[in-house]
Amino acid sequence: MSGRLIVFEGVEGCGKTTQLQRSHQWLKTLSLPAIVTREPGGTDLGTALRQLLLKVDTQPIAHATELLLYAADRAQHVEEVLKPELANGTIILCDRYVDSTVAYQGYGRGLSQSLIAQLNFIATGGLASDITIWLDIDVATSLARKQHQSTSDRIEQEKIEFHRRVQQGYTELAQNHPNRIVRVDASRSEAEVQGTIQQILRQRFPEIRAKCRS
Amino acid sequence: MSGRLIVFEGVEGCGKTTQLQRSHQWLKTLSLPAIVTREPGGTDLGTALRQLLLKVDTQPIAHATELLLYAADRAQHVEEVLKPELANGTIILCDRYVDSTVAYQGYGRGLSQSLIAQLNFIATGGLASDITIWLDIDVATSLARKQHQSTSDRIEQEKIEFHRRVQQGYTELAQNHPNRIVRVDASRSEAEVQGTIQQILRQRFPEIRAKCRS
Repeated sequence: MSGRLIVFEGVEGCGKTTQLQRSHQWLKTLSLPAIVTREPGGTDLGTALRQLLLKVDTQPIAHATELLLYAADRAQHVEEVLKPELANGTIILCDRYVDSTVAYQGYGRGLSQSLIAQLNFIATGGLASDITIWLDIDVATSLARKQHQSTSDRIEQEKIEFHRRVQQGYTELAQNHPNRIVRVDASRSEAEVQGTIQQILRQRFPEIRAKCRS
Repeated sequence: MSGRLIVFEGVEGCGKTTQLQRSHQWLKTLSLPAIVTREPGGTDLGTALRQLLLKVDTQPIAHATELLLYAADRAQHVEEVLKPELANGTIILCDRYVDSTVAYQGYGRGLSQSLIAQLNFIATGGLASDITIWLDIDVATSLARKQHQSTSDRIEQEKIEFHRRVQQGYTELAQNHPNRIVRVDASRSEAEVQGTIQQILRQRFPEIRAKCRS
């Protein structure tokens, strides 16, 4: 049996990690084999790369270097975690995948989209998600969620504009991949959002639907 | 004034590092602005990546990951060292560059040549050496140089065959890039090899030739 790769995407503060954890709990109550993982940092090597990117501060990291390091993290994650777990029949819930690089590095920071596409392909060998849940939320709302209430008015304009570009990236990605990417309105309550996600997963995957009936 | 990128290539034990240091001394006696650098590890980030590759041993590093990490090291080296030094008019003597990846990872380990070519281009942005000195030496001789005399007969067959494939890689690269790559017979004495290198550099670069006349 082949597993499923379910990816959660969205801007900071969209509730991605919470929804991913709740979905994991739900799949476990259905006795389905599910795991949670993430990018970057889903492997030991990835975690070390993440620390490295924070530690090396004597010289700025070049754009190409940064993209190559993210791609290295992804390549290792695909080979060490995603492929073997899919071969085992596991339902993988993954916090960010290739669309994050397109949205953040491409749309957000303006790095070359063709370079990002090349590196995404090299890193994944073409492994795409079975479904990508995009938690869509207004950028000002999501950034406010991430800040303490008292400092929410201090969000810099630059930061908002960056996240707006990222949001635009997700919007265009969803338009270009209407089957793979499903938009979920994340401005609602946690329970409502989770209800929608469960409905989508039941509709899309027969093995989940079958467990809900039983 | 634009500098020069002079790369030294060859199998282990070909005398690359020694010849590179001697060439550096020679250029300094000619009062030419010259530096020595290397790949991998020519930057702080590169050094950290190298340590990382040695440290992370819980899971094997995937082939694509390895190529991406080498490419990240190269991208940083190009941006942080090679481009600024070339813009400054420096003569750069570099221990290994893109041909090493083709020879070692491509020919030696059998990884995808088209992937290596893509990553080399991404990492360098197309920056090629002005000349590549290939120190050509018989593989058995070079490996014996690297070993203590007493253990030279214990070189494993596998190791020799790997280095023969790398050697074949350099041979084909030199055939395909006859202007950029210059073969030097490295089986001769250190002084003879250095004499040939100096002759080649004088012939190729007018600014070096001019200093030798004065």
